Parts: sequence; C-alpha cells; structure tokens
Amino acid sequence: MSKNIALILAAGIGSRMNNDTPKQFMLIDGKPLLFYSLSTFNNHDQIDEIYVVTNIENLSTVRGIIRDNNLKKVRDIIIGGKTRQESVYNGLKGIPNVSLEDIILIHDSARPLVTKEIIDRNIDACLTYNAVNTVIPVTDSLIESEGNESVDRNKVLAVQTPQTFRYDLILKAHEEALKENITNAGDDASLVSRLNVNIKQVQGNKLNFKVTTMEDLIILKAILER
Amino acid sequence: MSKNIALILAAGIGSRMNNDTPKQFMLIDGKPLLFYSLSTFNNHDQIDEIYVVTNIENLSTVRGIIRDNNLKKVRDIIIGGKTRQESVYNGLKGIPNVSLEDIILIHDSARPLVTKEIIDRNIDACLTYNAVNTVIPVTDSLIESEGNESVDRNKVLAVQTPQTFRYDLILKAHEEALKENITNAGDDASLVSRLNVNIKQVQGNKLNFKVTTMEDLIILKAILER
Repeated sequence: MSKNIALILAAGIGSRMNNDTPKQFMLIDGKPLLFYSLSTFNNHDQIDEIYVVTNIENLSTVRGIIRDNNLKKVRDIIIGGKTRQESVYNGLKGIPNVSLEDIILIHDSARPLVTKEIIDRNIDACLTYNAVNTVIPVTDSLIESEGNESVDRNKVLAVQTPQTFRYDLILKAHEEALKENITNAGDDASLVSRLNVNIKQVQGNKLNFKVTTMEDLIILKAILER
Repeated sequence: MSKNIALILAAGIGSRMNNDTPKQFMLIDGKPLLFYSLSTFNNHDQIDEIYVVTNIENLSTVRGIIRDNNLKKVRDIIIGGKTRQESVYNGLKGIPNVSLEDIILIHDSARPLVTKEIIDRNIDACLTYNAVNTVIPVTDSLIESEGNESVDRNKVLAVQTPQTFRYDLILKAHEEALKENITNAGDDASLVSRLNVNIKQVQGNKLNFKVTTMEDLIILKAILER
C-alpha cells in the first residue's frame, strides 16, 4: 500500500515583494502564510506524512509554526537548495523510508488556499496515471510581450500546485534533468514531461493562486478575514 | 482639446457562470457589478463623458443603475451587438459629436476594480502614443493545453482593460477587421495591432481582474466587503 506524502516548499526568499520577511512567513489574519497550506494537508485524511523544505536560516521559524499549530503529520524539515528545483530534489532525497511507488504531492506554500478537493483529485489521478498536474484555464487575453502579437489563450493552461508523482518517477525526472544541466525548472511536471511520460491534468481553482505581489496579499487577506 | 470618453461594455450574457442574471448585474455588496467600474470612471476628473453598451433586454436595468447612483457623466446607453467586437463597434458609432482625436477608453464592466491610477496611465499614454493596452505579467507557469509543453511566461503578458485609442484609429481598426471578416476579437488592441500601429503598454493591476467564474465572485465580494 503506497503512502501519500506531501512535500511543502517554503524555501523561497520572496525577492519580488521587497520585504524583509520571506512571504511564506508573513502574518495573514494572525497566521504565517505557510500555516494555511500546511494545515490543509495536515487535515486531509489521505495524507500520511508531510515534509517541509526550507532554508537553514528559517529552520527555527518553521519548527515553531509546526509546534504552535500542532501539525502532527509533519515528520521532518528538510533543508532546501539555491533554486526551487534543488529544494525539491533535496526534499525528495530527504524523505526517510520512502517506497518507489509512494505518491509525492509537491506544493508551493505560496499557494495558501489549496483545497481538500484539489488534493483529492491529485491523489486519485496519481493512483492511475503516476504523474499529475493541477491546471486552470487562462481567462485573460494573452499577448507576446514583444510586439503585441496575440497568443491563443484557449491553447494555454496555467499551472498550479500540487503536482503529484510516484516517487520513482519524480526522482528520475530530477536526476535526468541534472544530467542535462537543467537546474532552474519552475515546476516539477515540466521535468517529468521531459521523460515523455503522460501527465494527467486535474482541475485547480482560481482561489489556489500563488501569492506573488502585494495585490495578491490584499486579495488573500480579504478572503481569509471574511 | 480632445475629450476623454469612456465606453463601458455591459452587453455580456455571462454564459460561463450558469446564472440567470448576467454577471454585470449581479449584486455584490449591495451594488450591481456594473456600478463599480462605472463609478470609478464617473469619479475620475479627467473623464468627460461615459457611454454604456448593453443589450436591448437590459436597457431599463442599466438606466436604473445610472439614475439610482447619480452617475452624471453617463451621456447615453448604446445597444450592443451579438459579439464583443460588434458591441464595441456599435458603441464607437453611437457616440454623438465625437472628434477624430478624442480619446476613447474601452473597458469591460466585468473588471469592477479598475483604479484611478490605471485610468491615469491610459489617458497619459494615449496623448502621446494614440493606442494603449493595459497589461500585467503572468505569474503562473504556462503550458500548452495539448501535451504539457512549457510556454515561457516571461515572453507573455496578460491583457486587461481599459484599452485606449484615438477615435479615428480605433474606428479604422474595427472597419478594417470587418473588411477582413474578423468578427470575434476578444479585445480591441488586437484589432489595432493589425494596422501595424505601435501600442503603448501600461501597467495594470491584479486587482483589476475579470470576473469570470464563481471563484472570482468570492474574491471580489471578499475585497469589497473588507
């Protein structure tokens, strides 16, 4: 019986926000941003274990969040790397007693409003398809930044997290990427797709947006305070 | 001296929302969605006149919104067409006493949180460049919907409204499009770009999002009730 293991990424430095506090630790409605996704995974009855990836500088902050909020499924904190890709790879290698067929849900803590339903869909699809991406349609018109040329938004999807894979598959994807000197992938499905593996798409949710700008923080605070 | 004229589009039928009330008339925090953008344009000191484009079925609803909220800059309601493009064209032709050099700001009422600053930027840029598009960076990773192939989000921008043009230019863009049997443009800058005119990009704002799904309504309500 495979386990469902969540790898929560909280190693970002938030350089886009001009703020001393990395965004995953900003207090929103009294709780650090990281708390929200962590809590949703912790409360999901199909999630067996959680590992949080963070920087060495933030180790005690993350430890405090886990302890203060009684997040019992968090088994360990793993030290991340210089890039998102390296952080995920460190996370994958840092999970103890993992089986090749275990299901790994990789989630950015900057998406605090992930839902139980999105996690359900990821796990269900991964049992059959071994590789899952969470996507939503693009509702704005798109143009190329150089030259105002239109891009057909119906041929494009926006990628969210979690992205979910059998352990052996995602580990192989990372190792192949490193062999080919790919070191700065923005997400994990893009690495798995390089193996010519079919990736099942499941539906995300606009509320599962990534907190990137100050406007996102305004939106998030409004939703959480409601 | 050119006038600054806002053309507010409220002719959509909201087919994506499975709701009997078209979204521009849904009540959010006690006011119809259309009210919010209309009010922002009405209160902007550089906007001289406003025209609302809607369907014949909604004429009295729109009339009521304008009267009840004392939106004094609204000069008339113009009946739209079967498509967004046709509605804009009807709107352009329905503006009385317009001069060729007047500045026309075309805005989707489904973007209720347009700001004074975005309108400022549109007018300022149009005085110099004659054609203006409101854009924001894309923060999610993008993939092609068929095949999980990555699309470089740094080469793509998301388009918002208002889009702003000298009257002669936008009228010509619409007439050229019709000659070429283009009838279903999703926005107006895409028609102007066909004339090989340089379009100035100004910065939008994530809060100026388009209300498309029920999740967008949840986000909007949270922000407005705050």
